[in-house]
Amino acid sequence: MAKHYDMWESLGMDVEKHDDFLEPLPEVYEEVYLSQDNRPAGMDYFDFVVDDIHGIRVKELVEEKEAGNPVISSFCVFVPDELVTAAGGASIGLCAGAQFPIEAAEQELPNNDLCPLIKSSLGFKMDKICPYFEVSDFVVGETTCDGKKKAWEILDEEIPTYVMELPQTKSDAARELWKSEINRFKEHIEETSGREIKAKKAAEAIELINKKRDVLQRLYDTRKADPVPISGKDALLITQLAFFDDPERFIEKTSTLCDELENRIEAGEGIADEDAPRILVAGTPMPLPSWKIHNLIESNGGVVVCEETCTGTRYFENKVPEGGETLEEQIDNLTERAMNINCACFTPNDDRVDDILRLAEEYDVDGVIYYNLQFCQTYSMEYKKISQALKEEDIPVTQIESDFSDSDTGQLNTRIEAFLEMIQG
Amino acid sequence: MAKHYDMWESLGMDVEKHDDFLEPLPEVYEEVYLSQDNRPAGMDYFDFVVDDIHGIRVKELVEEKEAGNPVISSFCVFVPDELVTAAGGASIGLCAGAQFPIEAAEQELPNNDLCPLIKSSLGFKMDKICPYFEVSDFVVGETTCDGKKKAWEILDEEIPTYVMELPQTKSDAARELWKSEINRFKEHIEETSGREIKAKKAAEAIELINKKRDVLQRLYDTRKADPVPISGKDALLITQLAFFDDPERFIEKTSTLCDELENRIEAGEGIADEDAPRILVAGTPMPLPSWKIHNLIESNGGVVVCEETCTGTRYFENKVPEGGETLEEQIDNLTERAMNINCACFTPNDDRVDDILRLAEEYDVDGVIYYNLQFCQTYSMEYKKISQALKEEDIPVTQIESDFSDSDTGQLNTRIEAFLEMIQG
Repeated sequence: MAKHYDMWESLGMDVEKHDDFLEPLPEVYEEVYLSQDNRPAGMDYFDFVVDDIHGIRVKELVEEKEAGNPVISSFCVFVPDELVTAAGGASIGLCAGAQFPIEAAEQELPNNDLCPLIKSSLGFKMDKICPYFEVSDFVVGETTCDGKKKAWEILDEEIPTYVMELPQTKSDAARELWKSEINRFKEHIEETSGREIKAKKAAEAIELINKKRDVLQRLYDTRKADPVPISGKDALLITQLAFFDDPERFIEKTSTLCDELENRIEAGEGIADEDAPRILVAGTPMPLPSWKIHNLIESNGGVVVCEETCTGTRYFENKVPEGGETLEEQIDNLTERAMNINCACFTPNDDRVDDILRLAEEYDVDGVIYYNLQFCQTYSMEYKKISQALKEEDIPVTQIESDFSDSDTGQLNTRIEAFLEMIQG
Repeated sequence: MAKHYDMWESLGMDVEKHDDFLEPLPEVYEEVYLSQDNRPAGMDYFDFVVDDIHGIRVKELVEEKEAGNPVISSFCVFVPDELVTAAGGASIGLCAGAQFPIEAAEQELPNNDLCPLIKSSLGFKMDKICPYFEVSDFVVGETTCDGKKKAWEILDEEIPTYVMELPQTKSDAARELWKSEINRFKEHIEETSGREIKAKKAAEAIELINKKRDVLQRLYDTRKADPVPISGKDALLITQLAFFDDPERFIEKTSTLCDELENRIEAGEGIADEDAPRILVAGTPMPLPSWKIHNLIESNGGVVVCEETCTGTRYFENKVPEGGETLEEQIDNLTERAMNINCACFTPNDDRVDDILRLAEEYDVDGVIYYNLQFCQTYSMEYKKISQALKEEDIPVTQIESDFSDSDTGQLNTRIEAFLEMIQG
């Protein structure tokens, strides 16, 4: 992995700890990713991004800052990146999927009942091993769950943390609340950056970020083919990197990959065995470098063809309506997108059941693995209704609760192997 | 305990299971309550209510229903009881603090990471052993935490469950959301009961429920005295029963008790040893019959002088401003009260730190026991800031995480004993 000690030190990072954190990554990446057979050539770009994960992109952000552009980090698909882009800045998704920094966070957090994603996120800042944190003007939290809501209060002691109140229903009044929160966010960006957000720029930003969603949809569409032209692991990696990368470059590189995948489909060329069970992973996000579940599924002869997660369809399926000419119309449109996302933070959330049934059909899946980060109550409680609905459609489903550590890998391997065998009959 | 089999059967309860549930209660009550020395005579009424906990009050509610009055149950201090009272109905607090029904709930709920209060609440309905559930037209849930928010979706399959969206901040926009939710609740009561809620009745209801808050404040004021004239257990019981009882009778009986307690104070008569450490319990609710923590504290020579909980100060300290003449003004005033409650569901919630420091001073406490229901993330995560603030004021504090079972009683006894010894030096 490329080393950028001067930059990391100038960002105030703990360079030694950062080395410890990155040290095992190349070996893991080799084992999980590079050793795959018949990988699409277009994955080269994404391999390069991972190899330099804390390098070139961070350098770009440092340069953005030097040019006076805002650099703002967030943790959730609900935060409207478009407004940051419209202010001429960069928006980075910070969600963290590594076990390493959890130890630091656990020393600061009073309980052990907290989801690993939140602990990992906080730990990255506490350990000073995430350059994206260090380069950010501020981070944006949201009230999507109890744990995150309270985590922002603790994170705010380490870095300015701006909180957006996402409502918990989709009523008209709730919608008004979110609209006013988006407006407040716009004003906060303007105040902190000294930049006025104009309708023309906002329209361009909405188009750009929609294009990113389009290319991800195009990528996912290729996964509907049988045989599937790309592994689930590779597709997951691309979505994970979508949160970090420069949108224009990401769109270009993913388009090139899609060209290749569409050629594969035409040639009937697949990545997995013909009879490999096609799996939909539904549930909680898998931020970089959380590859465990996909790796276990695909090492056991299955293939993941879709993720109904925040690092999957929830990230890109809902676009912002275009054509708004005034900022007010555009903010209305940004509100509209959020209100169409079926996150477990909303009640009721029956449309998520419909989403999963629809995706199971669209991607022609043989089974669903419901992935639940430990202690994520909203998603684990939705399993009851979702598993009932899937069983009514005779679609096999199993629930896996896990974290980012390797401690349960053996046990999960046994369970996933058994589930795939059961599907194959 | 009095048996009312005919009524229970007519309500569709599982009478056999209900007998099993109630069977140990008299012995527990004797041990925890009746065996106390020097109890105020005015506790007789509350002993009587417990002895007939599923009898007379339920009969009253059945009669209310027969008279066409709405009977509505809720689980949280934020639900505006006043509107139910204004519609000529009865409002019952349903929060359940028993271990017995949790087994039933766990069979229905997909995870074991859920707070015992939620599991107990759902289990009471699933087991059909709570007559208050069975007599209710509908229950009112709210979005105060992830677990409850999702529990309502499951409970709604058993009994009509109306959900109010409580916001997560106290911004102007959040306040507007809650106001519109109160208005929607008013309309829902009107629609389901066929009763129109009028301003005059609403004004009377606001006055009545405020009087209930006043008498609880008067009760708590007596606990500021040294020596304290009533045990923490007894005071907790009164607050627990406040959720169930007819408000007018409750006010009358509690006033009579307060007369007696004020006489005790004048006479310098106390319930505990002179050097008994005075304890503030802060944190999550202790619904009926959850007496474990208070019993352990007071069996080990301490005395609980205040509860900063939903079954304590959060239930009564904030009154609804009176004098609103139109329904709109009254709904504004009902909104005002909620926005003054410092529940961990809000972010930021620094005013709760101030509340606890203020209560520690007002009640002249020697130490704080921070009580956290298992898996209640919002409260457990607030412990960090609260314990820091208490330590800065040299007020000893310890955190106890527990549930409604007896499985941890031995371990908690050791910890509480050690904490009280430490305080006494």
